[in-house]
Amino acid sequence: MPHLVILYTPQLDKETNIDVLCRSLANTMLAARDESDAAVFPPGGVRVLAFPAAHFAVADDGSAGRAAGGTGDYAFVYLQLRMANGRTAATHTRVGDALLKTTQTHFADIFEKRHIGITLQIDEGVPVYDAKHSNLHPLFNKV
Amino acid sequence: MPHLVILYTPQLDKETNIDVLCRSLANTMLAARDESDAAVFPPGGVRVLAFPAAHFAVADDGSAGRAAGGTGDYAFVYLQLRMANGRTAATHTRVGDALLKTTQTHFADIFEKRHIGITLQIDEGVPVYDAKHSNLHPLFNKV
Amino acid sequence: MPHLVILYTPQLDKETNIDVLCRSLANTMLAARDESDAAVFPPGGVRVLAFPAAHFAVADDGSAGRAAGGTGDYAFVYLQLRMANGRTAATHTRVGDALLKTTQTHFADIFEKRHIGITLQIDEGVPVYDAKHSNLHPLFNKV
Repeated sequence: MPHLVILYTPQLDKETNIDVLCRSLANTMLAARDESDAAVFPPGGVRVLAFPAAHFAVADDGSAGRAAGGTGDYAFVYLQLRMANGRTAATHTRVGDALLKTTQTHFADIFEKRHIGITLQIDEGVPVYDAKHSNLHPLFNKV
Repeated sequence: MPHLVILYTPQLDKETNIDVLCRSLANTMLAARDESDAAVFPPGGVRVLAFPAAHFAVADDGSAGRAAGGTGDYAFVYLQLRMANGRTAATHTRVGDALLKTTQTHFADIFEKRHIGITLQIDEGVPVYDAKHSNLHPLFNKV
Repeated sequence: MPHLVILYTPQLDKETNIDVLCRSLANTMLAARDESDAAVFPPGGVRVLAFPAAHFAVADDGSAGRAAGGTGDYAFVYLQLRMANGRTAATHTRVGDALLKTTQTHFADIFEKRHIGITLQIDEGVPVYDAKHSNLHPLFNKV
């Protein structure tokens, strides 16, 4: 942890650059500070992975969207951050608000042009087994 | 929420139309009613996303399947609905049973022809941060 | 359950065979024994599914990796096993350690050659609805 996983409807790949979104969200995580101004996440532990669905169905058959002047094609983006448990509610809010702002900024133009739903959630992981095997962390732990 | 995520072995894309499955499951969610006959899910919050695995391994190396007259190729479908917490057990059962019926109907022919395992689970999400940014819900909230 | 889901950065598909990893992990699950030497998982319930991300961002922009003599390209593999709840902590440790060993062996060469982070976690599923529809289990339940 932390892992930010993005599941989304695939038509968005033609409308926006999800690589850029991933990097923006990773940068937001790298910059996140808790109430005591300490970094929330270790740099080597920040990862954002995005997966377009191969098949999907959102809401109705498009009728409501077409009735409202749209194409009837709905997009959806689900962002789920899993972070270690035990952080304060204030830290969750800080991280969540920062990620939400980054996400809203990224999709601002698209939000004006099409029907889309975005959900951002943070879960606390409570694994019963947790192992790391990494040569990334040492890159960022230099004196 | 709710999100219904389908993870499945990719050979099924050659044997059945997963787009149709997604729409059938979304329609099942749209039609779901709780014990007081109220809609369980808001229409703008229904989303079904399906992801074929790029790589997989199921059960043994195929020996048991071939010994039983099959090809030794096993398929697997995992359907996971994450819904808001706090609904009754009766509602969970209604929704789960309806989704299971839709899924079994969709795969009925395939179930007769090949080795396949299907698992359907509902989890209650308990996020520590939960934000929505959507222009879908207003489409369905008209007077 | 159990389901072992692997989310990973897609450059790894050019560097290693994830099909082989899936089969090795499935074999590890098939071989897993609890403290009383009983099989932990039913053969028909073993499934490993792997999903390369279409887009990703890991750690920083690559600066730390390049400064350390690498390419600045970081890989990441997240393995998450979801198993039925109620097993002992000793069983979790046995299963986790065995999966970790298999994973480390698979990635040993890569770990020497590039920057990569691997995280393996086991979660206990606590679904509020859980249905199976399978013709796999009977293959392994013969007398």
